[in-house]
Amino acid sequence: MPLAPWRSPLARALHRNRSLAYARYVQLATVRSDGRPANRTIVFRGFRDQTNQLEFIADTRSSKIDQLLLHPWGEVCWYFPKTREQFRLMGKLTIVSADADAEFLKVRQNLWSSLSDASRVQFVWPEPRKPRSADAFEILPPNAAEPLPNFCLLLFDLDQVDHLELRGEPQNRYLYLKNTAADEDWSMQNVNP
Amino acid sequence: MPLAPWRSPLARALHRNRSLAYARYVQLATVRSDGRPANRTIVFRGFRDQTNQLEFIADTRSSKIDQLLLHPWGEVCWYFPKTREQFRLMGKLTIVSADADAEFLKVRQNLWSSLSDASRVQFVWPEPRKPRSADAFEILPPNAAEPLPNFCLLLFDLDQVDHLELRGEPQNRYLYLKNTAADEDWSMQNVNP
Repeated sequence: MPLAPWRSPLARALHRNRSLAYARYVQLATVRSDGRPANRTIVFRGFRDQTNQLEFIADTRSSKIDQLLLHPWGEVCWYFPKTREQFRLMGKLTIVSADADAEFLKVRQNLWSSLSDASRVQFVWPEPRKPRSADAFEILPPNAAEPLPNFCLLLFDLDQVDHLELRGEPQNRYLYLKNTAADEDWSMQNVNP
Repeated sequence: MPLAPWRSPLARALHRNRSLAYARYVQLATVRSDGRPANRTIVFRGFRDQTNQLEFIADTRSSKIDQLLLHPWGEVCWYFPKTREQFRLMGKLTIVSADADAEFLKVRQNLWSSLSDASRVQFVWPEPRKPRSADAFEILPPNAAEPLPNFCLLLFDLDQVDHLELRGEPQNRYLYLKNTAADEDWSMQNVNP
């Protein structure tokens, strides 16, 4: 599959901001069951091999999973502090959990193994957003070879990318739209900031 | 009006991250007319005097205004890189434009005057998201005493604040809920991260 045209400015931004660990933190907006928006920081985990899909992880007990089951659309807002640019990524999220097809299970397994112990141990902690548990939280990380059942992968397929460079003259903004007919056929337009 | 209980941890985060200009950049999620989420970076402009309302600004020609007219709810995600903490602010946004009541017009006027020339001049630029204009963009800033008609203020009234400290042991998370009965009566709960 060919690289989408927005991959190259995004790769450049990632490279130029690589000294900041939090340049890989993005904000994911979803819609709640009552129709109100939700928004939280998640960590970009890379691209799925040979595709333009972004990878994120989630705990199946978190409310974003309930939201995505009802309404799979999301918009990620990604601000790069060093280069002063923003990418808005709009698309659909697919949840890859323990009952996925073999091909996806492999991707899920690989991502689980690539995590730090500190990330993996959170999947053993008590249920998120419930009253704080009195017990000490588990500190022994789970097996790196065996994803816990509540671990899931999120694959993000984009329809639209809105790239804003605040450092332009005066500013530059590029809009990438996926042409629905073909799979990875994108058009790009130079628009007003 | 008393300060809401989440004001003090938020003020502390703002203070401890004050060396980073972008610690005042937040991501606002709204809902589009087709029900899909939208998400973009906006700048926190302070609190409205004597209230717990957050102030933001917007151009009435931007799509977030169309979205808010249909669906006034938003969630702001605010990540503070230095202290590694996140605030999720959920509430309703009020648009204060040129036809607002005198009391609100004054707030709008004051905010306009407090902006930098670089911020004000953007309201003279051609329509956002339309094909890039061939003409050079205006560089002469508009009158600081007279808000342009497409300038509007957004006042954000919160219902819920979700504060996550990644640096806790292991992490701390506090949920603030506004008790619907009284106006600024909040409860706080210590919850699992």
